[in-house]
Amino acid sequence: MAEPATATQAAAPAVPQLKDELDIVIPTIRNLDFLEMWRPFFQPYHLIIVQDGDPSKTIKVPDGFDYELYNRNDINRILGPKASCISFKDSACRCFGYMVSKKKYIFTIDDDCFVAKDPSGKAINALEQHIKNLLSPSTPFFFNTLYDPFRDGADFVRGYPFSLREGVPTAVSHGLWLNIPDYDAPTQLVKPLERNTRFVDAVLTIPKGTLFPMCGMNLAFDRELIGPAMYFGLMGDGQPIGRYDDMWAGWCTKVICDHLGLGIKTGLPYIYHSKASNPFVNLRKEYKGIFWQEEIIPFFQQTVLPKDCTSVQKCYIELAKQVKENLSKVDPYFDKLAEAMVTWIEAWDELNPTGSSVTNGKAK
Amino acid sequence: MAEPATATQAAAPAVPQLKDELDIVIPTIRNLDFLEMWRPFFQPYHLIIVQDGDPSKTIKVPDGFDYELYNRNDINRILGPKASCISFKDSACRCFGYMVSKKKYIFTIDDDCFVAKDPSGKAINALEQHIKNLLSPSTPFFFNTLYDPFRDGADFVRGYPFSLREGVPTAVSHGLWLNIPDYDAPTQLVKPLERNTRFVDAVLTIPKGTLFPMCGMNLAFDRELIGPAMYFGLMGDGQPIGRYDDMWAGWCTKVICDHLGLGIKTGLPYIYHSKASNPFVNLRKEYKGIFWQEEIIPFFQQTVLPKDCTSVQKCYIELAKQVKENLSKVDPYFDKLAEAMVTWIEAWDELNPTGSSVTNGKAK
Repeated sequence: MAEPATATQAAAPAVPQLKDELDIVIPTIRNLDFLEMWRPFFQPYHLIIVQDGDPSKTIKVPDGFDYELYNRNDINRILGPKASCISFKDSACRCFGYMVSKKKYIFTIDDDCFVAKDPSGKAINALEQHIKNLLSPSTPFFFNTLYDPFRDGADFVRGYPFSLREGVPTAVSHGLWLNIPDYDAPTQLVKPLERNTRFVDAVLTIPKGTLFPMCGMNLAFDRELIGPAMYFGLMGDGQPIGRYDDMWAGWCTKVICDHLGLGIKTGLPYIYHSKASNPFVNLRKEYKGIFWQEEIIPFFQQTVLPKDCTSVQKCYIELAKQVKENLSKVDPYFDKLAEAMVTWIEAWDELNPTGSSVTNGKAK
Repeated sequence: MAEPATATQAAAPAVPQLKDELDIVIPTIRNLDFLEMWRPFFQPYHLIIVQDGDPSKTIKVPDGFDYELYNRNDINRILGPKASCISFKDSACRCFGYMVSKKKYIFTIDDDCFVAKDPSGKAINALEQHIKNLLSPSTPFFFNTLYDPFRDGADFVRGYPFSLREGVPTAVSHGLWLNIPDYDAPTQLVKPLERNTRFVDAVLTIPKGTLFPMCGMNLAFDRELIGPAMYFGLMGDGQPIGRYDDMWAGWCTKVICDHLGLGIKTGLPYIYHSKASNPFVNLRKEYKGIFWQEEIIPFFQQTVLPKDCTSVQKCYIELAKQVKENLSKVDPYFDKLAEAMVTWIEAWDELNPTGSSVTNGKAK
């Protein structure tokens, strides 16, 4: 497990699932050589590449991949003044890809994530596992001690109420990382050599009412069910904070999933995270967030969405209102963020006009 | 993983932890030959054997173990009329052992549980892992995606609030089972051949506000922190229900741990569960429970304990009151159970008079 997989070809499935219903979104500032390793798994799918930074730079994509690429000029052209809600010089820009996709499912991955190996040495098809997670129900209302009851060889254990065994639709599949763990800057500084070598062979539903730190490195979701909540906020250029883009999306998404009766799974699949980012740079980006999250998290823990919030968009607009009311006192940044959240939904609805993103979930 | 471990001697630690602070409680109706396999791990500890069924029968315990044994006559003699709260002809009688113990920690195991092997083939010292779980904090207020952050090689991930990283005291360690999974009778009937062969290398805290199905087969807890909540109810002889003893204890314990700010962990260690119980017999025992749990679980999900419930005993007496008020309409059995819950606490306090069982936790 200390090395990424190399021979990935053999592990590719004969028939790629959801081939025409899933886009792979990759934010990047560099040539996408990392795709070579993923070729057997990703090549059947369409890629949406969101180029961050200098738009005049050319990003090389290996031959044979089907992709569309958007740089900052494209984002500005497509969204006009609403482009202000899309971050610049930060991987948070990836959420533009969620918006322009026309597919039901999204898988997003960072360009420093390689193919991991399972304990038997076999290359892990991360996308295949995400699809399994998304296509089977979640169980947020009661904990199952044998983990995902819908997995082969598992089930609900004695004492699990039968009325809850149908589960709820899964909106998000949160995958993990071997090798470089996703630590904050202080932990990186204290444990520079720590590597995640433990392969935990489990998928589980994060219970209702419990928040979690959602990492955007290896993430899949059903954009029809939850897409408009997957806004990665205002980070990077001109903003006082970075590295909280996925956390923000995770908190908003969890609160909305809990309200709408949708599930979030975490665990498998693993990717191999190759590069530790610079902890000093990270500390500069994060340090306000480290303070702010102490107030943001109690806010999200206490958030109640009204019953008439029956779509993700309505939930998100309501959340923006509550962010403005409750977090502006933490920092004026949250005023700006709350406005950007509204702009994001306006832009989403402009690009997705048919109501195809209306949730199938039910308000609690 | 399809076989139990045989050579367990090599896996025993040089210095057994908590040797004088932990009792092993075993309910049984048969000779305890299964202890031979556990000898390297259990022999340093004191055993409390609760003999169920015919008290005139002699239970043979392998030589070299330090134990005390209680049969029904002993229970009646020690508790007098209060013995009515201890079940007969049901493994629920094990909770008598929790009551007479004078130690801080309890590990309880069924006599059809053998030593399991980890994926490398090494015999698993279940007790050692339980002790690790109990001696490190729990994290019930926020989910950590890399599981137990206190384990070697793991930590809190990016986005985990620093104010919550101290954790809370762990009251319960819930271990799992390879081979025969702990299924209810309907699932046993439908999947007679299903075996649990998946070794999930994780320990995690069950989040606050989430109930779980606690199995009593392989369970450890801190009796000073939570002992009086570990009542296994009225089951077996003369009762309309069986196989819900540990479930009942789990629901009560979880609600009280949540109230007092204590943690419950589940996952490692595995034991090897050797014998599937008879699903037809189980169905007869369980079938009322299958209906009743549909009302019991919403009851426990909604239970709020008042602020002045600052000890486990106070919480438990309050819970008994709420059971009487809310569940008696389900069946008159719950009237009897609520009364037995009060008797149990009276008996507990009689046998544990020094206040040694007052919790260190704080009411929320």
